[in-house]
Amino acid sequence: MSPKISDRVNFADKLLQAIDTKNSRVVVGLDPVLSSIPKYLAKEKIQKHGTTLTAVAETFIEFNAKIIDNVAEFVVAVKPQIAFYEQYGPDGLTAFIETIRYAHSKGLIVIADVKRNDIGSTAQAYAKGFLGKVEFWNNETTTIFDADAITVNPYLGFDGIKPFVQIAQEEGKGLFILARTSNPSAGDIQGLPTNDGFVFEKIGEFINKWGQNSEGSRGYRSVGAVVGATYPDEAKKLRKLMPKCFFLVPGYGAQGAMAKDIQPCFNSDRYGAVVNSSRNIIYAYSRDAQKGGYKEEDFAQAAGNAAKRMRDEIEQVLR
Amino acid sequence: MSPKISDRVNFADKLLQAIDTKNSRVVVGLDPVLSSIPKYLAKEKIQKHGTTLTAVAETFIEFNAKIIDNVAEFVVAVKPQIAFYEQYGPDGLTAFIETIRYAHSKGLIVIADVKRNDIGSTAQAYAKGFLGKVEFWNNETTTIFDADAITVNPYLGFDGIKPFVQIAQEEGKGLFILARTSNPSAGDIQGLPTNDGFVFEKIGEFINKWGQNSEGSRGYRSVGAVVGATYPDEAKKLRKLMPKCFFLVPGYGAQGAMAKDIQPCFNSDRYGAVVNSSRNIIYAYSRDAQKGGYKEEDFAQAAGNAAKRMRDEIEQVLR
Repeated sequence: MSPKISDRVNFADKLLQAIDTKNSRVVVGLDPVLSSIPKYLAKEKIQKHGTTLTAVAETFIEFNAKIIDNVAEFVVAVKPQIAFYEQYGPDGLTAFIETIRYAHSKGLIVIADVKRNDIGSTAQAYAKGFLGKVEFWNNETTTIFDADAITVNPYLGFDGIKPFVQIAQEEGKGLFILARTSNPSAGDIQGLPTNDGFVFEKIGEFINKWGQNSEGSRGYRSVGAVVGATYPDEAKKLRKLMPKCFFLVPGYGAQGAMAKDIQPCFNSDRYGAVVNSSRNIIYAYSRDAQKGGYKEEDFAQAAGNAAKRMRDEIEQVLR
Repeated sequence: MSPKISDRVNFADKLLQAIDTKNSRVVVGLDPVLSSIPKYLAKEKIQKHGTTLTAVAETFIEFNAKIIDNVAEFVVAVKPQIAFYEQYGPDGLTAFIETIRYAHSKGLIVIADVKRNDIGSTAQAYAKGFLGKVEFWNNETTTIFDADAITVNPYLGFDGIKPFVQIAQEEGKGLFILARTSNPSAGDIQGLPTNDGFVFEKIGEFINKWGQNSEGSRGYRSVGAVVGATYPDEAKKLRKLMPKCFFLVPGYGAQGAMAKDIQPCFNSDRYGAVVNSSRNIIYAYSRDAQKGGYKEEDFAQAAGNAAKRMRDEIEQVLR
């Protein structure tokens, strides 16, 4: 594989720069759920667009924009989970794309959590759509999603990963390949014992191989891994198997992991991982409201405070 | 798990009925690629909509509709691969949904090839969007994609599969869980040896367990598996491990498998599998054109003939 040399900045370098600038390793998951979003926000959209899918999209876009405004200072990236948008069809995808654009306008890196996977020719279509440029009229191309990085599923093996690696390299984009997910049943398949370590360790070895030559100027790679905060013992093993890979670490907060649990995801240089929290940040208002803390109208401020708190917790344990 | 008993027909029963009615086990993959679609079709759309994404969507919709008109007599289902649509964003998804609607209007079953996968709460969003109903305004719900079945990736284990199984059961829909994919690198992970068989065999056991109690009136289940035609030896093992599961078999034709290769995917009753071909059917005109067979304008007729030929080949070897 000899990817076209790109003059764009390596994704790992971009991520490292954001970490240093913000003094933060936090990613905020943007997972809009209609019943969890403040009612007053939706009302205006329904007045304008009726109880339509357009109103759903507009509600998501405004909710996300306000969250982004308030968390941007404290986080390096946002991670919209496409399922929450795509379930609403074309209107949902419009909200997804507008969210990416808005986050970019605020200087944030966008990791699109799409977990896509397919055989080579089909994987290439996903890679072009999410990270690169798609075939258009008159032999031209056009950009559609323009995410900075995406998550992908490795179950189909290298020929399903290669198109993502190639296009990420060409475009200065990043990948996080699922190694150990954060959910309770993660071990069903990832924890199967092979004749030489568990499946997730073999995946770690594969990811380490698949991402060769994707290092940026500081030695970290644009081809990284998803490693759940909920499995610190597994994270420790994976850290050793993939020393140059950036980890995207889900499972913090709502899924039960705390600051001390994510320590094994980092290298001794305090780099090599970014940590995601979704619900505990974007819906912090409703949790704290129960304790008399926030009104619905203060949801974005509550998210900003929660993001700052998480940043400080993580920086504290890494010190 | 105690899914709500649905009064809808079990997906496997629907599929069996279609197989008997059409005397066919063929699925046509609808994978629209701009540069492969007849130029004359696009011209009219560009005149109307300019060189826009709307024109891309309209071109896909008309291409698919003409294919559907010509293959419907010979096939039980169509399988749109969402990557080829989603890469074009919201307009692409509009074409995807319109294609599903048109196929339904012609009495065809639609298997949406989405290979989605995520942790529980997120998997549920996908399941609602593709198979069920999504949360809408005023505590109501609405249907978005309305596919009859989807493909899903099992790498995250049961809690990522359970929402799909539950919603499929409630809605009379089907699932095909990736067991052994058809691509050259399928063995990287699926072929890892465990202390008790290969990973793909463990997946076969899981799928057999996860789909318990999804049998229809003829003993076949609505929770099935994807088993590549390109790996007949593995298919033989998986057929034994999942006797009641329907297999969706990709890899026929363009990927190299022939009629004799798919025999191990079937039970001795000649049921239990449907076989997909995409490029070799929908772009048959361009292959045969090189031999002086078809003009661009005859692409749909060429597809119909290719589908009939594939149906006959398969029925022949199963006789």
